[in-house]
Amino acid sequence: MQGEKKIIPRKLSGFMELSPEKQIVFDNIQEKIKDVFNRNCFMPLDTPVLELAEILLAKSGGDLDKEIYHFDKGDTHIAMRYDLTVPLARFVAMNSETLSYPFKRYQIGKVYRGEKAQKGRFREFYQCDADIIGNEQLPVAADAECVNMLYEIFNKLNLEVVVNISNRNLLDGLIEEMGLTGQRNEILTALDKLDKIGEQNTKAMLQDLGLNDKNISALLNVCTLKGDSTKLLAKLSELSKNETYLKGVHELQELFTYLNAYGAKNCIINPGVIRGQNYYTGTIFEASMPSHPEFGAVGAGGRYDNLAQYFTDKKLPGVGMSIGLTRLFDLLDKNNMLPQEPKSNITLEIIPLGNTLPTCLGLATYFKEGGINTQVNYDERSFKAKLKAANTKQIPYVLIVGEDEVKNGTYALKDMLNGTQSTLSKEECLKTIKKDA
Amino acid sequence: MQGEKKIIPRKLSGFMELSPEKQIVFDNIQEKIKDVFNRNCFMPLDTPVLELAEILLAKSGGDLDKEIYHFDKGDTHIAMRYDLTVPLARFVAMNSETLSYPFKRYQIGKVYRGEKAQKGRFREFYQCDADIIGNEQLPVAADAECVNMLYEIFNKLNLEVVVNISNRNLLDGLIEEMGLTGQRNEILTALDKLDKIGEQNTKAMLQDLGLNDKNISALLNVCTLKGDSTKLLAKLSELSKNETYLKGVHELQELFTYLNAYGAKNCIINPGVIRGQNYYTGTIFEASMPSHPEFGAVGAGGRYDNLAQYFTDKKLPGVGMSIGLTRLFDLLDKNNMLPQEPKSNITLEIIPLGNTLPTCLGLATYFKEGGINTQVNYDERSFKAKLKAANTKQIPYVLIVGEDEVKNGTYALKDMLNGTQSTLSKEECLKTIKKDA
Repeated sequence: MQGEKKIIPRKLSGFMELSPEKQIVFDNIQEKIKDVFNRNCFMPLDTPVLELAEILLAKSGGDLDKEIYHFDKGDTHIAMRYDLTVPLARFVAMNSETLSYPFKRYQIGKVYRGEKAQKGRFREFYQCDADIIGNEQLPVAADAECVNMLYEIFNKLNLEVVVNISNRNLLDGLIEEMGLTGQRNEILTALDKLDKIGEQNTKAMLQDLGLNDKNISALLNVCTLKGDSTKLLAKLSELSKNETYLKGVHELQELFTYLNAYGAKNCIINPGVIRGQNYYTGTIFEASMPSHPEFGAVGAGGRYDNLAQYFTDKKLPGVGMSIGLTRLFDLLDKNNMLPQEPKSNITLEIIPLGNTLPTCLGLATYFKEGGINTQVNYDERSFKAKLKAANTKQIPYVLIVGEDEVKNGTYALKDMLNGTQSTLSKEECLKTIKKDA
Repeated sequence: MQGEKKIIPRKLSGFMELSPEKQIVFDNIQEKIKDVFNRNCFMPLDTPVLELAEILLAKSGGDLDKEIYHFDKGDTHIAMRYDLTVPLARFVAMNSETLSYPFKRYQIGKVYRGEKAQKGRFREFYQCDADIIGNEQLPVAADAECVNMLYEIFNKLNLEVVVNISNRNLLDGLIEEMGLTGQRNEILTALDKLDKIGEQNTKAMLQDLGLNDKNISALLNVCTLKGDSTKLLAKLSELSKNETYLKGVHELQELFTYLNAYGAKNCIINPGVIRGQNYYTGTIFEASMPSHPEFGAVGAGGRYDNLAQYFTDKKLPGVGMSIGLTRLFDLLDKNNMLPQEPKSNITLEIIPLGNTLPTCLGLATYFKEGGINTQVNYDERSFKAKLKAANTKQIPYVLIVGEDEVKNGTYALKDMLNGTQSTLSKEECLKTIKKDA
């Protein structure tokens, strides 16, 4: 192939591909999220990336969304999953008789959206989802479990967030009281823009929808409340006597009792939280970072009445939380907020001097069995070049194995951080390195 | 949606989807493989599932393989990766100037093959790949590193395998000596069938290719040798004076020196190992399970001269190993060879009695922070039903929290295995559970 025409190596745009050094950081974050899910006794699930198109399009009544990657293979119309919720619904509907409820599952996996590539948008990205599915009913304690877990995750990642919480019934109740239920979705869409376009523009949008000034100020009044849960709950409970509205207030009250019991911090009531998805029916929440409001929601979730309504008559209420890890990682990376990058995952590099490679390999087995990430540098470069490279890669320890060392059974262990070198048996080397790890 | 027409929930055939209980076992195996890769200082890489079709089809000169899932999105012809090697080649070619060599990377990810579904074949499956890429040259020590790692993985998984090892140069040299280089691929294909169709049928195939009896028996003689490396190497070195052939013998000699130094067990020379892929050029190896020869190769790999020849003029020799985890898991599952399935990942379940849910949530936080997988059972079922369910799920510990317990600050910890129950403070509970974990 030398000299022949080459294909230019390039990847698709909108697809994240990290350097191995950064991938270590990404994997560590993912591992921490997985740990929190497991610690909370959610069970893992790994559904296929590909589904029958009719399954993924069930929600839209079969209409093809431009964002969905789909294709025919033989007689089968196949689509790539665009979230982890529809596959969960399909899984639960298929296995509803054998699952034990409440069914708590997590899934960390890639999802696909073929939208126009733009800054900060990815066509392939990791979602980290956890949901609790009930059979017929599901108590508010499940909502608290999901909100608390979102808090725990960011706490574990050392990222300070505020979790803004509302309940869909608050605004639904007010809209019902105003006799505007027919315009519910348009009103919610307008209110959802409040943070972005400001109060005046939102007002104008609501006026365009034909709302009178009294209703507009009632809605904006509720949506701009924010703050300490105890005071706000008292205030909220006085604003309307509508039943749906008061159901929302009571659910929020119960939710905050549980969140306080868990010890979850930085959870506030914010009735201005709307969350786009129409399927949320109760608790809704999103986490944002006070230090970086421009990041928007870095995690979110909510309660839905009926997970699998397109697949089964069974009533399966649920509540879930989700983190878009690829986007979050990208934001942290661009703002230098990632934990310091390691240059490698090597703890010990063994460098043979002279004809000692076989001995070095045996030593590598010894140190690996001792739990140390070890590699033997069998490269043909000079000893000096190898030491320099180990330094650049910030490898903490280098073991130098010359022919004399092999005879004596003691080796030169170099601590690369402070530059000291000691002659030790392999057992002493292991002890020294482990003390440090 | 109640009562409306439902879409039948089903998944695509040929796609594995495990129950959450089995998924825990799968994830544990995957975690162990990842640990071995990290312990050996391979760096993680996570390339996209989708690539430009021209990249994935580079090898075939742009010809569309029926097995590849591909589709158009706008003006872009997109394909799903069918292995992790071509994406690695693309990555290395794109980043060849900034990588440090030898470049050791691992990737565990799903790949896609749209072939006809048949027993034991999957259209979506996990590959666990590790490769070492050199710049211009790469010593045989790298081959030993990959073979040894394959051994280490199966050792860690408690699965007894034999690693059958050969070198492509052995048969290439013999064929060269016979003046049959033009028919090389056909001859290798015939010899590759030896295990399946037996010596007589292979002989017939070679006769059909026009080979004379002397050449046929020389080839079959080498291919049926097997056994202890020292004796075999001595024997092999006497069978031909062809330079290519002797290169193969010498590389095998060096490889076994290193494998012995590592302490890798059950590695044998088997010149009958062919490995389908044409791109292997030196060491080739595959692991099989003596207790289950019908499983075929459960892991394999080899040396190739030029990883990225379709993308760059740079000479990048490599060696790699790969495990098809989905297929392996399926085989182990069907033969009852998986480690015993846990019924859940729950270590402690807290059951509230009376109005104690908030206290239980606070206790859950305490135990989770102490490293215990904990869940609170806020279900509306009776206490008896909850205890029974905990027993079915084989949850090791249940903490019963009644209103008196809340007053006293001591709780009833039930050891579900032996049925004993003790009244303890939360600190004592944590100590008891941790001792057991």
